[in-house]
Amino acid sequence: MKALVFHGPGQRAWEDVPDPTITEPTDAIVRVDAVTICGTDLHILGGDVPAVTDGRILGHEAVGTVVEVGAGVRNLMAGDRVLVSCVSACGRCRYCREARYGQCLNGGGWILGHLIDGTQAELVRVPFADNSTYKIPEGVSDEQMLMLADILPTSYEVGVLNGCVRPADVVVIIGAGPIGLAAILGAKLFSPSHIVVVDLADSRLEAAKSFGADIALNGGRDDVAAVVRDLTGGLGADVTMEAVGVPQTFEQAVALARPGGHIANLGVHGSPATLHLEDIWIKDLTITTGLVDTYSTPTLIGLVASGRLDTSQMITHRFNLGDFMEAYDVFSRAGETGALKVLLTAHSST
Amino acid sequence: MKALVFHGPGQRAWEDVPDPTITEPTDAIVRVDAVTICGTDLHILGGDVPAVTDGRILGHEAVGTVVEVGAGVRNLMAGDRVLVSCVSACGRCRYCREARYGQCLNGGGWILGHLIDGTQAELVRVPFADNSTYKIPEGVSDEQMLMLADILPTSYEVGVLNGCVRPADVVVIIGAGPIGLAAILGAKLFSPSHIVVVDLADSRLEAAKSFGADIALNGGRDDVAAVVRDLTGGLGADVTMEAVGVPQTFEQAVALARPGGHIANLGVHGSPATLHLEDIWIKDLTITTGLVDTYSTPTLIGLVASGRLDTSQMITHRFNLGDFMEAYDVFSRAGETGALKVLLTAHSST
Repeated sequence: MKALVFHGPGQRAWEDVPDPTITEPTDAIVRVDAVTICGTDLHILGGDVPAVTDGRILGHEAVGTVVEVGAGVRNLMAGDRVLVSCVSACGRCRYCREARYGQCLNGGGWILGHLIDGTQAELVRVPFADNSTYKIPEGVSDEQMLMLADILPTSYEVGVLNGCVRPADVVVIIGAGPIGLAAILGAKLFSPSHIVVVDLADSRLEAAKSFGADIALNGGRDDVAAVVRDLTGGLGADVTMEAVGVPQTFEQAVALARPGGHIANLGVHGSPATLHLEDIWIKDLTITTGLVDTYSTPTLIGLVASGRLDTSQMITHRFNLGDFMEAYDVFSRAGETGALKVLLTAHSST
Repeated sequence: MKALVFHGPGQRAWEDVPDPTITEPTDAIVRVDAVTICGTDLHILGGDVPAVTDGRILGHEAVGTVVEVGAGVRNLMAGDRVLVSCVSACGRCRYCREARYGQCLNGGGWILGHLIDGTQAELVRVPFADNSTYKIPEGVSDEQMLMLADILPTSYEVGVLNGCVRPADVVVIIGAGPIGLAAILGAKLFSPSHIVVVDLADSRLEAAKSFGADIALNGGRDDVAAVVRDLTGGLGADVTMEAVGVPQTFEQAVALARPGGHIANLGVHGSPATLHLEDIWIKDLTITTGLVDTYSTPTLIGLVASGRLDTSQMITHRFNLGDFMEAYDVFSRAGETGALKVLLTAHSST
């Protein structure tokens, strides 16, 4: 089959690789019908995730059709159409039993396109298939479902829920890439008074407005701290989310929070940040980090199915699976191309 | 009257100052019967809290007798014996209404011995007296009550409750000064499986054991990370508390936490720390900072009164009020003198 293979920082190729096979009784083999590229894949290509080694097929988001299941799979059969989630889960370990699937101790967690071959391929082996896939309900399109593989649950769990967004809050989201934009959608479910989005690319700030941001600021031009002070009587934001992954924006997220505020880190980081304890030891801050667990995926599927959560603006560019190299080019130059999520489809089903 | 006055980093004197007077109708003047010195006072003398300026009377913990109240005070009258809490509270602002008294917006919070003159004196003006004092119940001694002015609610709220200590947890407390020791007492209320205490002074490690630590480690000699790994199947601690106030111990507290763990900062810090986001972005950590609010003070008074919380080992040295300079000498050389809390009394009532 063909797959998008990582060959060290900055190096990727769409090339021939062996078809995956069932190796554990809990595996399924899924034919990829629709797949996308994540900002995390760019972090991998940038060298921020050293656990990803030469030869790895990237990708941890897909919608597809089951072609084969191992003897231990109970929920799925060949022909089922499923979401392949970015997080796999054994379902049996201490963390899985606490619904912290991202920290699975038996070889699950975020493994696809990271520790094992991923979804940017014609076929993918999905371990722990019963707990790592979701059937596609009626009324939800492949495109909508694909946004539930990673960005919606990540932004919702790690940003909105960890950040404890509450009605009337002033929420600052730094970074208007797909995760930041999805965080707008998630935050709006809790009726904040203002969502302030900060980015350096005007095209992304426009997208943020169309996703529901009340105020969109260019971090290179606007005085973000002054705007937040004005909105909050000088106190600072109730919740800040870092959705970029560099030290400067994390430090900005901490500095913008009010006493008693929450800072939710969503970014994938490759470098340490400076934590100004001399300022914040007294400020009652709560800082959270996290990998998505996908415990909210069924909730989010329900919200999409009922029309309460509209992801239709997320996909900006469409490609055939064979055009993966071009799709990466477009996605990695998002500031210029305006790309949010790119969709790659294997055939005309979507 | 006589008072202990700060004269810039490293400089303090027990000297004559004017008696305090009622300046607001919500003030009370309290004659100090028993008072102590806090590790925070040493941080102030070390220059870590620049808001404290030359001429400030230090101290934010006392038990005393009300001698005069302003026209707006409703709960107190002259002759009442009260705890003067480290946190004053207007009781009316947004933060006070959320029980976040430490962040009071109307001039309360931690002000005594910080932004206004404090308790290390023969008399002290207590603002917002109704909300900043607690009457001393029967069966609780002045000494016991004094430990409720700061260290018990601080360690309980900012360490134990912010850290979300739960039954069966492995809890690591870095720093076995009074706050760290009080955190042992608070953590034990939640039945952790192991409390591991780390310090550099063997005398404090002995104290930690007598306060109930299961394992006491010398951070200069012992391999703390290896001990924690062995206790937790390699995962790390459920909760770590930083009770020192230097970057190294904060960074150690972060590194020792398991995926999904909590890091509660108790230390007063004067310098930034390095936050290794490249390691922890994926680890589901919750880091909290905070000033005590004292919302738990009534609960803790009840626990002391009923004998469930025993602070009797906390006070190691006793002085007359006039010996304040010597008391500071003994307290600041705690590694050598074994001082935990020092008690200074104005007369023979305790």
